Amino acid sequence: MQIAIVLYPDFTALDVVGPYEVLGRLPGAEVVFVAEDPGLVRNDQRSLVVSPEATLDEVTNPDIVLVGGGPGSRLQLDDGKLHEWLRAVDRTSTWTTSVCTGAPILAAAGLLRGRRATTHWAAMEVLARFGAIPVHDRVVVDGHYVSGAGVSAGIDMSLMLAGRIAGDDVAQMVQLIIEYAPEPPYAAGSLDVAPESVVERARAALAR
Amino acid sequence: MQIAIVLYPDFTALDVVGPYEVLGRLPGAEVVFVAEDPGLVRNDQRSLVVSPEATLDEVTNPDIVLVGGGPGSRLQLDDGKLHEWLRAVDRTSTWTTSVCTGAPILAAAGLLRGRRATTHWAAMEVLARFGAIPVHDRVVVDGHYVSGAGVSAGIDMSLMLAGRIAGDDVAQMVQLIIEYAPEPPYAAGSLDVAPESVVERARAALAR
Repeated sequence: MQIAIVLYPDFTALDVVGPYEVLGRLPGAEVVFVAEDPGLVRNDQRSLVVSPEATLDEVTNPDIVLVGGGPGSRLQLDDGKLHEWLRAVDRTSTWTTSVCTGAPILAAAGLLRGRRATTHWAAMEVLARFGAIPVHDRVVVDGHYVSGAGVSAGIDMSLMLAGRIAGDDVAQMVQLIIEYAPEPPYAAGSLDVAPESVVERARAALAR
Repeated sequence: MQIAIVLYPDFTALDVVGPYEVLGRLPGAEVVFVAEDPGLVRNDQRSLVVSPEATLDEVTNPDIVLVGGGPGSRLQLDDGKLHEWLRAVDRTSTWTTSVCTGAPILAAAGLLRGRRATTHWAAMEVLARFGAIPVHDRVVVDGHYVSGAGVSAGIDMSLMLAGRIAGDDVAQMVQLIIEYAPEPPYAAGSLDVAPESVVERARAALAR
């Protein structure tokens, strides 16, 4: 089971590493980090540098495709090599998945027309712009498309997907291995619960 | 505020990327991934390759030190360059932190003698072997030492720490930006709640 995780400049690390930690632990999983060009890829914070092990051209038939988000996703909304690759691999993938603002990339590539999907709370309108149906859930499944909400939601998305792929027992084993029994010290992780002042502060930070 | 995140071969990616995503977003944060030697570092799954941007020698005065865990942590329990560095930077660090089996490394370096600390549920006895007091909590603070339990616990650990460093408002802003409102699809993330068959399966997988 080959899992292709897409990297591009200014990606958000946790978007891809959360699901990687889950899906990569499934029996038979073989993960490959892919990028359009060879060479190092730097994340949005500019301090994490990853060396992808394949170019898009070299990965033609992955079983699972994962596209994460990040500020750099805005530069991946125009048609080009990544979109062509996504359309091609999506024809044979078992699951095509996204975390955060990875969903707008899938939508911009034309894969989510009329499909329900989720993304980061601050990017919902981008999904609609490309013909997807934005849903304010943490994880959304529509056909073989699975999307997670912002950044950390990739862990929940991938655990759900792990259950579908390998069964509940294996998914729970992975959950226990990564000790995923979250205890957030605050209730501020979604628009529903965050204090208004925190929402304003987060919107201002994201706008910068 | 310089944050040094230690990399070594066979590290677990989420251990370091969870806290990185939180702490790196604090005002004035400057993260540097450090390793004993220059050159690429490969994780436990062997498919994620990171290029650290400094060697231990080059980072002498970080404000925060973070040591993650992973199967490779077992090879970091003997005294040597990493331990020497940890003892040196700990003298001036504001916070010395760990996730998962990073805590046994701090303990083996002699930093946690008589200190309360947590680690991955499967590694508690290693802490005691090096004179630390194992505590079965998700996050443990003792003096300027902060430890998180297994893998995903680094997110909770770092959000708590973010509040201490930058205040509750900023910590909550970061929580909202990374949309950390977890919805695990199963209740299997800790020994307390996981079904016995899942615990056995996880123990067997970790022993391999």
